[in-house]
Amino acid sequence: MLETTIAAIRPPDEPAMAAARELQGRLTKPAGSLGALEELSVRLAGLAGHCPPPLPEPAAVAIFAGDHGVHAQGVTPWPQEVTAQMIGNFLAGGAVVNAFARQAGASVTVVDVGVATALPVAAPGGHAGDRPARDEPRLVAANVRAGTRDLAVTAALTRDEARAAAETGIRVAGELIDAGAGILLTGDMGIGNTTPAAALIAAFAGIDPAETTGRGTGVDDPTYARKVAVVRAALRRHAPDPADPLGVLAAVGGLEHAALAGLILGAAARRTPVLLDGVIAVSAALAAAAFAPHAVAAMVAGHRSAEPGATVALRRLGLEPLIDLGLRLGEGTGALLALPVVTGAVRVLHEVATFDSAGVAEK
Amino acid sequence: MLETTIAAIRPPDEPAMAAARELQGRLTKPAGSLGALEELSVRLAGLAGHCPPPLPEPAAVAIFAGDHGVHAQGVTPWPQEVTAQMIGNFLAGGAVVNAFARQAGASVTVVDVGVATALPVAAPGGHAGDRPARDEPRLVAANVRAGTRDLAVTAALTRDEARAAAETGIRVAGELIDAGAGILLTGDMGIGNTTPAAALIAAFAGIDPAETTGRGTGVDDPTYARKVAVVRAALRRHAPDPADPLGVLAAVGGLEHAALAGLILGAAARRTPVLLDGVIAVSAALAAAAFAPHAVAAMVAGHRSAEPGATVALRRLGLEPLIDLGLRLGEGTGALLALPVVTGAVRVLHEVATFDSAGVAEK
Repeated sequence: MLETTIAAIRPPDEPAMAAARELQGRLTKPAGSLGALEELSVRLAGLAGHCPPPLPEPAAVAIFAGDHGVHAQGVTPWPQEVTAQMIGNFLAGGAVVNAFARQAGASVTVVDVGVATALPVAAPGGHAGDRPARDEPRLVAANVRAGTRDLAVTAALTRDEARAAAETGIRVAGELIDAGAGILLTGDMGIGNTTPAAALIAAFAGIDPAETTGRGTGVDDPTYARKVAVVRAALRRHAPDPADPLGVLAAVGGLEHAALAGLILGAAARRTPVLLDGVIAVSAALAAAAFAPHAVAAMVAGHRSAEPGATVALRRLGLEPLIDLGLRLGEGTGALLALPVVTGAVRVLHEVATFDSAGVAEK
Repeated sequence: MLETTIAAIRPPDEPAMAAARELQGRLTKPAGSLGALEELSVRLAGLAGHCPPPLPEPAAVAIFAGDHGVHAQGVTPWPQEVTAQMIGNFLAGGAVVNAFARQAGASVTVVDVGVATALPVAAPGGHAGDRPARDEPRLVAANVRAGTRDLAVTAALTRDEARAAAETGIRVAGELIDAGAGILLTGDMGIGNTTPAAALIAAFAGIDPAETTGRGTGVDDPTYARKVAVVRAALRRHAPDPADPLGVLAAVGGLEHAALAGLILGAAARRTPVLLDGVIAVSAALAAAAFAPHAVAAMVAGHRSAEPGATVALRRLGLEPLIDLGLRLGEGTGALLALPVVTGAVRVLHEVATFDSAGVAEK
């Protein structure tokens, strides 16, 4: 499924992009006055293959949750049980992602792709499209294993496990799109998951982990130093090959990272935009881009996470984020804040009058 | 009315701000992980005088439209008639501000405070609260004069005219709030209005117009040079006193700039947030802050306009914008894009579970 998905990802449609550029020039506003929204509308026309592209709605947030063997190295002060507890919070509607999703009219799907401890709720069936969009938060049970192995000691995942997680992401993308979603938003939950994200970004960018490792949920100086050392040692030990994204994900990734890479590939194969959240998302996006360079055409960078690795990854992907407010929460919160900007950029092509039609003089 | 409004503006409520800070620390997210949204929620609690502050809805955009005698100096390539034509476009729902307002569920009120040419529509009565929020765009007829005088030659307005425009803004703020608005968004339309905005910002900041003058809707090099020279000569000629904001608005301002200053004061007096759009709005905000320093507590900077003067004014007001996407359209478009961020910041205080209530462990 991974290979057929990658093979289905096509380059953007140049005539649709040209049509969007031309239309932007005729709308009742000075040329270029919508700044980054104009180029965003052009990119989404290229992705959809027509102009105007469909309005990106309804929106569906997919939160992939997993745990991390590297938690044993003391890279975070939070207990591992918080991953499972926060899933309970998501399903009860009490987290920030729920508040933002309600406001944006987005559905929330939580996918247990690798939680290590007992969930506080019974897991229902495994189809992300089971309930209509904009319904209650839902849980998809797709646990590949109970957390990764400790990447400081051994490979975090086998290649088969990494593939299973990626294919879960592809499957969830397909199910959400089949259920009507016009845009997918990446979400994540996993205590310790900024450590594999920093490792993935360093591996794909070929740079030192000091440049990609941040303070995550807010670690102190000794924990931060330990975190950088753990990532650096892991990359030295595993020496992952950036041309082999499945190998990189297996060596130093996480199950939610692999699943998010799959979600992105699945969306790109369906020519559906995927709005990236923070550092976990962009680390997965680097893996997706390594699998299929044209997948970048489906990506919209929601926000610039406060984590330094996020900026490294965005630069490498050639993406400018829409929001830059110092967020570092994850869950999909940054992507949800950016959603109205994406919708607005497309809406302009659908609804704004031209100089001709409105009887407005040009300069 | 101007003086009583200014007298009604109180400093922010410190206990409400402390309560919001304390609540942010108990919500199920790492402390500080919502970045700028946390401080924004604290500011809005201080403005409202309680925690949580009310959700800022419904939203009302007030677009003040005026023309400019300085148009005669060739500071813009657009014909003056476009101001009136764009009012027709606003009322027909065809402009970008309409598309964004529909998406955000915001009402649109267009106030003719000084258009010079014939409007393409009959002006109805003068009450901004006549129709319920979220209804069709409406027009308020409040023309103080048919465009300002040419500030390159004489004072743009008399003090009485500037006051009349400011009091129109105060009145519109009151009517929109009386009609239920929970937040006001500034909008503007006026061919040539970045020239007085650059003059106002240079006057209030006490700096050279080269630092505050931009290319507006996209002027060429000779026009830009002429624009800077016009602003510089006007400031030399009128030497407005920044401690006398009515005098500054009269000398080098515009009717929509004065009205927006009034709208901001009117919102602040009613402890209602006002979301600022671009360079016209922030030039008016400097005037409002000169009238009443505590009015800044009611201001939220929606976005950073591409106009250089906007950054100068925001710095002087001590405001960080929520969106920075190179927009330079005006109309209220940048404020509307930022509205979901403001609403989201407040919604967190209303809807997110605490660690205690959700049974989530802390670090």
